[in-house]
Amino acid sequence: MTDVVEQGEEGLTKSALKKKAKEEEKARKKAEKAAKVKEAEQVREAAEGPDYAAGHYGKLPLHQSQSRPNRKRTDIATLSAKNDSEHVLLRARIQTSRLQSNKMAFLSLRQRTDTIQAMLAVDDKQVSKQMVKWAASLSDESIVLVHGTVVKSPESIKSCSIDDVEIQVSELWLVAGLEGRLPFSLEDASRSETAPEDTRLNNRIIDLRTQTNQAIFKLQHAIGDLFRDYLNNNGFTEIHSPKLQGAATESGATVFKVGYFKGDAFLAQSPQLAKQMAIAADFERVYEIGPVFRAEDSNTHRHLTEFIGLDLEMTIEEHYHEVKELLDGMFKTIFKGLKERYAKEIAVRRDLTLTFREAVDLLVEDGVDRGNLDDINTENEKRLGRLVKAKYDTDYFIIDKFPLELRPFYTMPDPNDPTLTNSYDFFMRGEEILSGAQRIHDPEFLCRQMRAKGVDPESMKGYIDGFRMGCPPHGGGGIGLERVLMLFLKLNNIRRASLFPRDPKRLEP
Amino acid sequence: MTDVVEQGEEGLTKSALKKKAKEEEKARKKAEKAAKVKEAEQVREAAEGPDYAAGHYGKLPLHQSQSRPNRKRTDIATLSAKNDSEHVLLRARIQTSRLQSNKMAFLSLRQRTDTIQAMLAVDDKQVSKQMVKWAASLSDESIVLVHGTVVKSPESIKSCSIDDVEIQVSELWLVAGLEGRLPFSLEDASRSETAPEDTRLNNRIIDLRTQTNQAIFKLQHAIGDLFRDYLNNNGFTEIHSPKLQGAATESGATVFKVGYFKGDAFLAQSPQLAKQMAIAADFERVYEIGPVFRAEDSNTHRHLTEFIGLDLEMTIEEHYHEVKELLDGMFKTIFKGLKERYAKEIAVRRDLTLTFREAVDLLVEDGVDRGNLDDINTENEKRLGRLVKAKYDTDYFIIDKFPLELRPFYTMPDPNDPTLTNSYDFFMRGEEILSGAQRIHDPEFLCRQMRAKGVDPESMKGYIDGFRMGCPPHGGGGIGLERVLMLFLKLNNIRRASLFPRDPKRLEP
Repeated sequence: MTDVVEQGEEGLTKSALKKKAKEEEKARKKAEKAAKVKEAEQVREAAEGPDYAAGHYGKLPLHQSQSRPNRKRTDIATLSAKNDSEHVLLRARIQTSRLQSNKMAFLSLRQRTDTIQAMLAVDDKQVSKQMVKWAASLSDESIVLVHGTVVKSPESIKSCSIDDVEIQVSELWLVAGLEGRLPFSLEDASRSETAPEDTRLNNRIIDLRTQTNQAIFKLQHAIGDLFRDYLNNNGFTEIHSPKLQGAATESGATVFKVGYFKGDAFLAQSPQLAKQMAIAADFERVYEIGPVFRAEDSNTHRHLTEFIGLDLEMTIEEHYHEVKELLDGMFKTIFKGLKERYAKEIAVRRDLTLTFREAVDLLVEDGVDRGNLDDINTENEKRLGRLVKAKYDTDYFIIDKFPLELRPFYTMPDPNDPTLTNSYDFFMRGEEILSGAQRIHDPEFLCRQMRAKGVDPESMKGYIDGFRMGCPPHGGGGIGLERVLMLFLKLNNIRRASLFPRDPKRLEP
Repeated sequence: MTDVVEQGEEGLTKSALKKKAKEEEKARKKAEKAAKVKEAEQVREAAEGPDYAAGHYGKLPLHQSQSRPNRKRTDIATLSAKNDSEHVLLRARIQTSRLQSNKMAFLSLRQRTDTIQAMLAVDDKQVSKQMVKWAASLSDESIVLVHGTVVKSPESIKSCSIDDVEIQVSELWLVAGLEGRLPFSLEDASRSETAPEDTRLNNRIIDLRTQTNQAIFKLQHAIGDLFRDYLNNNGFTEIHSPKLQGAATESGATVFKVGYFKGDAFLAQSPQLAKQMAIAADFERVYEIGPVFRAEDSNTHRHLTEFIGLDLEMTIEEHYHEVKELLDGMFKTIFKGLKERYAKEIAVRRDLTLTFREAVDLLVEDGVDRGNLDDINTENEKRLGRLVKAKYDTDYFIIDKFPLELRPFYTMPDPNDPTLTNSYDFFMRGEEILSGAQRIHDPEFLCRQMRAKGVDPESMKGYIDGFRMGCPPHGGGGIGLERVLMLFLKLNNIRRASLFPRDPKRLEP
């Protein structure tokens, strides 16, 4: 069982022992302070009389799984007027609290995205003045265990998501308190103008508790599930390819280098090679969901140094449009699934594939100088998105047949026009969400295309060898999970679509 | 659309142009050789008479999606006697071929794990002597496009998985040939004694085509799906946490260091921190499937430097056995699902949880010296597995309550015995497949436990801060996907359960 540390999930191990004395000194001071606070409490209690509510509230001892009475816990989301006068037990956070004339405390209790009002009112046997004051003194975001009774509310409670009932609290126990002040309130975080993006990302744990963020990551999960379901139903096999690579198959500038025992390794910039090798190994149709690493010093709203790639590759029988059509069907299924689950819509009115040339013509018609359209830059991408939306009423479309000079060497040229390729990009709200193509499956032709693009085939021997033992015609594509999520929800910043985003300036939290 | 290269799936870009002249020289020589071969063919043809089968066979031009006639392709797996006399069109590999008295050629055609016999017989209008010879001359593993007629076989064809029909070939086209010799035949790869492990891993693309390997990776996919389905049905959210970390939260010896712009980053050794932060951020129940990196120079049958972790974390209401029971239910569902899909069984006869002490007692009873059992080493793990199997007739069991000194600092101690912890390992065939525990959710107590284990809390500030804004009690566990797969199938070497394995000596393919 030495394995626990060796290669189980338990990773964090020992480091040097430092500042121990300092820490202990701190702890001593803290204990002294606590003793003083307790003394003050006793003085207060003497003034307020004996506390008949003692035993109904307070801080619980550290939860170490001391017992297991199997008492039912309630999800507040399930509560409504039909539960009137039921006794409930639940764990929740205090979203806000307020004391009313020292006799009543109102707490807004939260579980994930649901909130309910809880009320403590001084009576003469269960709830004391001291208990009410203590309840109102708990920090926002504290976690409490609540015993109480569901009561129909005389009027709709506008401040809570459960608006027809509240909880009359009989016992209130603190499970986990807060140390220090909240860097911002959840209300602030919900209004981005009052809590700056950077502050929120620095305090991502609080930030992630907002209703919006809880929804974003449920949606992220849903996109992954819909992607997998669609591909599983279409005969794909999920693969996991290594992120540690022996050679930097890409230019040195954009690949992260890793110390690997006595040598070096490199982080995979895409599962491109592995996917194609799986095709050469007769997997026929494969997909992967995994991290992709890009060492680009791009500090934009849509670049991360680490993001989740949804990648797929499949053999082709007759034509690469088999892949394009499968991908199109997949996106439409994803959009439909998201709409069904989240009632959020994106305009996908018709099947629309433009060729690159047609896209350029649209831009030229709109006044863009043709001379600047060898490539379509980010600005013109957005413009094209608006033009297509105006003309075809769709937020989603495909561009096919990109010029050879814009695509990587492994892209299959068009059979009729050697300046074009069998490649496509998918667009959503004027930004690219997928890039893909038919790939070259013939090793000799691949070498020729590499040389034509100034790439030395010797530098990518492993890649080329993958095709020497016979590889079927194939194509595929890659999707950035965070980018699709950002564009679907119009988040404007890809960092908001990543749980703990990584960019050239951010490695924490 | 500069994005294609910037951050689409297309990653492979330019490198320096070298050895170009050398390559061209090679190509010239090759062309000369080809011309000679062609000349020889013409001589042969002259001797054999005109080829009336010309136009029915040969090498196809490079597949560039030239046309799309929408002709139906057939999966050989669907063929049986009911398809007698149907015309079929299909792409397949030639597994083996044999020529019979220059008049007939028999090919064994393969699609993934299915094989069917194809036959070419010289007649006087469609199939010529030249065509039969050419068919028999194609290398094993070539990919061909076959037109033919399904014919009921007079007797069962033992060498093929489809044994009641064969295909009478009318046209045969080479889609992708082979360059060079196969490093080993697929038959050899299927019998590990004749193809050494290392040779197979060096030529993984061929190796992966074996029936066994095709099945292994279908099973790997199935484990992932069953894991996700179970957790999705139990209210979990899938998360993706960053593999690039700002601090080496683990000892320097076992973490990979990455050059990150002007500084350094480290590859995550587990998603432990991120999972717990998601719990502190009110996700309640989370899981992740992703790569885990371990810079351990362990060259054993069960260590990889990169493997896929199936990790989960959930809040606890009353007791950490809520987690243990969920994990137990999950494994049983996975085993059941694998059995249903793959008819392969593992003995899971009863619910069996031993405490660490009971496990030690079992080993002592069996003659192991108690003095050597402060920990249970790999050898004794295996022995315990055998003892449990003999006594309880199960390949799967749980050990609960590990001693504090064997677990990481973030493990919650037992409330009644501070030398023990609320932690568990799951075992399968005498090897650990999951390690997990209740975690410490209180930041001050966490610091105390760190100091007791000689870890400086300052060195893990980010981790501890994650708990300062209130974190509910929680627990979880981590599973190595490859290890479960290896033990389920008794593969004896974890490399066989990884598509492209990584160990201290292997970074390719």
